[in-house]
Amino acid sequence: MTYWDPIETMPREELEDYQLKKVRATVRHAVKQSPYYARHIPKECRDVRTMQDIARLPVCDKDDIRKDQEAMPPLGRMLCVPEEKVVYISASSGSTGAPTASPFTQRDFDEWIDYEARLFYSSGLRNTDRYCHALNFSLFVGGPCVLGAQKVGALSIHAGTIPSERLIKIIDQFKPTVIWTTPSYAWYLGETAEKMGFDPAASSIKRLFVAGEPGGSIETTRRRIESLWNASVHDYYGISDIFGACAGECTAKEGLHLAEDHMLLEVIDPETNEHVAEGEKGEMYLTTLRKEARPLIRFRTGDIVTYETDRCSCGRTHLRLTGIHGRVDDMLIIKGVNVMPSAIESIIRSNEDLTGEYRLVVTRENHLDSLTVETEHVDRFKGNLALLEQKIQHDIKAALGVSARVVVYDEDTLPRATHKAKRIIDKREHVWNE
Amino acid sequence: MTYWDPIETMPREELEDYQLKKVRATVRHAVKQSPYYARHIPKECRDVRTMQDIARLPVCDKDDIRKDQEAMPPLGRMLCVPEEKVVYISASSGSTGAPTASPFTQRDFDEWIDYEARLFYSSGLRNTDRYCHALNFSLFVGGPCVLGAQKVGALSIHAGTIPSERLIKIIDQFKPTVIWTTPSYAWYLGETAEKMGFDPAASSIKRLFVAGEPGGSIETTRRRIESLWNASVHDYYGISDIFGACAGECTAKEGLHLAEDHMLLEVIDPETNEHVAEGEKGEMYLTTLRKEARPLIRFRTGDIVTYETDRCSCGRTHLRLTGIHGRVDDMLIIKGVNVMPSAIESIIRSNEDLTGEYRLVVTRENHLDSLTVETEHVDRFKGNLALLEQKIQHDIKAALGVSARVVVYDEDTLPRATHKAKRIIDKREHVWNE
Repeated sequence: MTYWDPIETMPREELEDYQLKKVRATVRHAVKQSPYYARHIPKECRDVRTMQDIARLPVCDKDDIRKDQEAMPPLGRMLCVPEEKVVYISASSGSTGAPTASPFTQRDFDEWIDYEARLFYSSGLRNTDRYCHALNFSLFVGGPCVLGAQKVGALSIHAGTIPSERLIKIIDQFKPTVIWTTPSYAWYLGETAEKMGFDPAASSIKRLFVAGEPGGSIETTRRRIESLWNASVHDYYGISDIFGACAGECTAKEGLHLAEDHMLLEVIDPETNEHVAEGEKGEMYLTTLRKEARPLIRFRTGDIVTYETDRCSCGRTHLRLTGIHGRVDDMLIIKGVNVMPSAIESIIRSNEDLTGEYRLVVTRENHLDSLTVETEHVDRFKGNLALLEQKIQHDIKAALGVSARVVVYDEDTLPRATHKAKRIIDKREHVWNE
Repeated sequence: MTYWDPIETMPREELEDYQLKKVRATVRHAVKQSPYYARHIPKECRDVRTMQDIARLPVCDKDDIRKDQEAMPPLGRMLCVPEEKVVYISASSGSTGAPTASPFTQRDFDEWIDYEARLFYSSGLRNTDRYCHALNFSLFVGGPCVLGAQKVGALSIHAGTIPSERLIKIIDQFKPTVIWTTPSYAWYLGETAEKMGFDPAASSIKRLFVAGEPGGSIETTRRRIESLWNASVHDYYGISDIFGACAGECTAKEGLHLAEDHMLLEVIDPETNEHVAEGEKGEMYLTTLRKEARPLIRFRTGDIVTYETDRCSCGRTHLRLTGIHGRVDDMLIIKGVNVMPSAIESIIRSNEDLTGEYRLVVTRENHLDSLTVETEHVDRFKGNLALLEQKIQHDIKAALGVSARVVVYDEDTLPRATHKAKRIIDKREHVWNE
């Protein structure tokens, strides 16, 4: 067996017919079942006959999902099935710190697992492999994709996020051939192993699947990880609103294949709102094609990408993301967790001991991202500074799940902005593939 | 539908016929496929014709599994299928700190999920429920049982172990009706909620499934949790060598039903090695009846239990564990994690700065177990004491996954034992149901 699913090599023309049919069905399902879509999609746009008609459909974004779920908690009016049919939610944190939920029916969930198996298989995973899942299983990352590895037949080790020394011991004992983690952690783990006297290059690991950060497609980062582990790095891209992993690198490594039977891609110039040509940068819009519980129609991902549609040397016809170049918005990704500066702002600004001024400094130490939040106490504050710092740190951790270093200065220490505040100082190198 | 599976009400006579047939098949499968069982089970015991014949089969225990997996890493010679067929392992830590693996084929895994669904259904879970899984997903607890809740059709929220404030926010936002956690954490979480101004008794939670510790069957603990949350507590018992949950309380709450189509129970007097009568205490031996990857035959669980076989008022015929009364061995359960004192001993004794003397003090603060490791440095040690304590703490965390407080005294501070060392001081009340 060369491919997991015959659809992977479907000629593009057929694939586009398939997509068009699925977009039509999705729009019909959405406006029929969901009060949100019934209102959101004008009657005159509902009859999608050509690919050009798709561009007439209204877009939606994370903020629309959030407002919808706040208005009708917890799953919102975008939901297209009775809640009894929902068996799973993945969730992501966002600009207010409140997670938004992405609901799945059992069919959606099974399709996700099958799709995950397809991606893993394309990256070389086989039933003779041992797969170690070293990503967080909690709400905010979407661990159940490990079931995709089990579907391939690989022996799966649900490690989760555990102390590095323990993970190294598990690698030593169970000898996984494949590990899934973030690129920065893969790097850090390799160096930790070396310090423990365990040679990662001589270990059982032959492939690393990396996700959650752009590092896997950044040549220098990738090469460092590959040489450290003497193993092949395969980059993955996910978006919790759709699937834990939406695209991944096959063994030919000519970009990240996106399953075009599950998602329709559009790449749009954020200035002109026009489609950009292949190879050019633009914002990625995705339309789900098979989602039952909560289809997304022209969902603005906020990610700036480039893509190519010519056949990959692996034989697969589905398009490849050839670069993920950054974010349209200010979102930071810290250790694989999405952090909107506005979420931190709302914590700072709800604390009466603080002036409301703040600055976020992101650095990379030992290949791990580190976030420092600098802020100021008001003049009248006479309390214990260390306790205040601890409280803010705790509030950030509780709301966002991210450990930040917090430094509280005297009032008027931080620079005031004259025009647009420069609140983010990102000292990391090569965070985005530019 | 009243029951998940018709087998739950099978008349006991039929059930025992079924079990006998399955034990015979299991022994045949084991001696044919596994070099361990081929050597371990004498030829003259292999023909199991009556329940009495079962008592002639040799027993095995955790230590046998460990030695077998150490001799032939990582899965040992007990494995009864080619490794390509293994898709999942659950694992538990033990006396040396090295986890032992419990392997599953896809069929075993699917049966586990279905069995989990059966237990949850018997406790009242339905497809209209929202289920919040707040147990750890990592290797050492076996989180995938959350898939059982999905199989029932409940909306499942994979929370995992996250900070309490965050979990409360998730409860507030997604309004789960059921939560699964440890009893001590259920208690602590309820009190944390109150401190945050969130009234657990007024929350969406209607049922708590608790596991990992005996608290759910201890009347005082159960009543406190039930009144705090204004919700029903259902106790669960699991053993990672077999299933994440092996027994659970139905809505009648007359003990924990054990699926007798999956496991054969024997309760044995540890002194005489004879079967004890119903209602009397003895060590629980389990024989798996359907496991493909690694059947266990007469596995000594180390748990002291009582059981009853008369029909439960819920109508189910499968026997009920009416008490889990403690351990045969010294194992501690700290926050749901099994801790063998010998694992800590091996860390202490491999550190040249320490005398090798130690004492484990277990307390309960805010309903959470807390482990303090007291030890001594050698006279010649002139280093930084705080750093030494930190190192030991770190080594314990890395090996066992448990956070312990470590106190290093001067040489000869701890009491020396004249006969048998009293190394464990358990200050918790009502840890076991005695």
